[in-house]
Amino acid sequence: MDIIRAGIVGYGNIGRGAEKAIRQNPDFELAAVLTRRSPGDLVIDTPTAAVVHVDDALSLKGKIDVMILCGGSATDLPAQGPEFAKHFNTADSYDTHAKIPSYFEKMNDASKKAGRVSVISAGWDPGLFSIYKGLAQAVLPNGSGCAFWGRGVSQGHSDAIRRIDGVEAAIQYTIPISSAVEKARKGESGSLTSREKHIRECFVVAKEGADKTIIEDKIKTMPYYFAEYDTIVHFISKDEYNTSHTGMAHGGFVVHSGKTDSGRQTMEFSLDLFHNAEFTASVLIAYARAACRFNREGRTGALTVLDIPVSYLLPKSDEELRRDFL
Amino acid sequence: MDIIRAGIVGYGNIGRGAEKAIRQNPDFELAAVLTRRSPGDLVIDTPTAAVVHVDDALSLKGKIDVMILCGGSATDLPAQGPEFAKHFNTADSYDTHAKIPSYFEKMNDASKKAGRVSVISAGWDPGLFSIYKGLAQAVLPNGSGCAFWGRGVSQGHSDAIRRIDGVEAAIQYTIPISSAVEKARKGESGSLTSREKHIRECFVVAKEGADKTIIEDKIKTMPYYFAEYDTIVHFISKDEYNTSHTGMAHGGFVVHSGKTDSGRQTMEFSLDLFHNAEFTASVLIAYARAACRFNREGRTGALTVLDIPVSYLLPKSDEELRRDFL
Repeated sequence: MDIIRAGIVGYGNIGRGAEKAIRQNPDFELAAVLTRRSPGDLVIDTPTAAVVHVDDALSLKGKIDVMILCGGSATDLPAQGPEFAKHFNTADSYDTHAKIPSYFEKMNDASKKAGRVSVISAGWDPGLFSIYKGLAQAVLPNGSGCAFWGRGVSQGHSDAIRRIDGVEAAIQYTIPISSAVEKARKGESGSLTSREKHIRECFVVAKEGADKTIIEDKIKTMPYYFAEYDTIVHFISKDEYNTSHTGMAHGGFVVHSGKTDSGRQTMEFSLDLFHNAEFTASVLIAYARAACRFNREGRTGALTVLDIPVSYLLPKSDEELRRDFL
Repeated sequence: MDIIRAGIVGYGNIGRGAEKAIRQNPDFELAAVLTRRSPGDLVIDTPTAAVVHVDDALSLKGKIDVMILCGGSATDLPAQGPEFAKHFNTADSYDTHAKIPSYFEKMNDASKKAGRVSVISAGWDPGLFSIYKGLAQAVLPNGSGCAFWGRGVSQGHSDAIRRIDGVEAAIQYTIPISSAVEKARKGESGSLTSREKHIRECFVVAKEGADKTIIEDKIKTMPYYFAEYDTIVHFISKDEYNTSHTGMAHGGFVVHSGKTDSGRQTMEFSLDLFHNAEFTASVLIAYARAACRFNREGRTGALTVLDIPVSYLLPKSDEELRRDFL
């Protein structure tokens, strides 16, 4: 078995999840964690791995087969992605859906020039959900699909609340509305609005003296995040928050319903996740393996999950794959 | 758009389903239906397509981009598959799991020599379920998966009953047992026996004067098909059979449950099918498209669903795919 020497860039929730996922994949070895903090201050779980400042990434050239980019999509990945792609194979879970085409172009340019492979947007949405949407559309072209998220914690929405003045802590749960799910199963998802598909429920700890009415109003009218939804806001104590609202459970499902000649056929793909970040990191590791394998075969440029067959994700021979999965 | 000229080999349930699926895919055109019957006797739904005897298949060389092989796995495909692969790109849904490795080798040899591509075992199980099992194992290696079928009609089991002396008509429903499904969701599927996972329920019309006790005993003790299961046999009238038991509904689901560091993560893929054969045929058409595209790119040999990325299944550019599915 060829060992894949991985670097983890960013040691937040996903970076720590990637470190744990690497331990579950014997063909991987964590060679280094790259951080913007002072490397001496960062304690990681893998004693054999180096801790290196991101500015010194080039010192790792030739020592790393793939960099797992674990930064956020808002500011980290748009800057770091193309820089790392100039020198390393990479895998990331860039998830700003509308900007994926332009991110793809930048990553493709950088990795083509470098003779490397970059796999982008390899989480669960985008990522596994994208595979299922594409597969379902290919099989049932006379149909339509719809994704639902939750019930679970949206980090992006929770962060948006935390940035409001007077908020000490906050968490947001996305909840699918069952009447919409039923419509999707009948192939009637096309007409559903955002408000009809999901409820947003927020648990907020206000700072002492903060005006809760103002906070609630700011949440409910926040464009993109909450204004288009029925949003419920609960104010709770810090104790209740710490006791009941620190989990990372999430999940969701894609429903695709289509008609063949005789009747309706429905495909559904669902995830029930105890720990969102660890799951996303596990997806990343599988696609990091594919990035290395494609690059070893001489391929260069950016790829998405839609370009990568299942056989590239598993450390097994084609004969073993046919025996085990067909 | 390049038009794909398809031939359908065999005009049973799947062949007729393929003809209907081709009508839903504007990049396909049905050029010919190949049959073992006398071509003059076969009435098909597509007036522009030729009806040709299978023995005259070579007359279609250069006029067909891909042959959709719609015969059965027991005797048709093992004989027809390698013959057609010598001359044409092919797609089939060969489903005798244990013999797939040897079928693959034969198809690979034939299509490599011919400079063509053969996609084998592209239905829903094997096929879509195989993709899902592989993907789940790649993402959650510390876990296990389990497939359930039904509630739905198994053609193979129904046929097995029909071959018993004294049986006029019969249908068999496969029913998953919910306690087993719950175990699979908790990651405890490894210990489940066949008997614990599915019930087999049979509705049988006996011929006049036939001994029902003997028929029931022959069903329940039939090795592989029924002996390993709790099997329920109901004798019904021909009228009741015709009224209530002629559907082709089926379905099933794959549950994969694995642990990352913090807890359990569960992935599930399910199908709810009104018409099994039409759905299988729809999968075949998508993979026939991939066979043509791979061959146009210069690839040869046999492929399975595990080797084919989603992007090859859809008649869209890579830019459109990224925009629509990521």
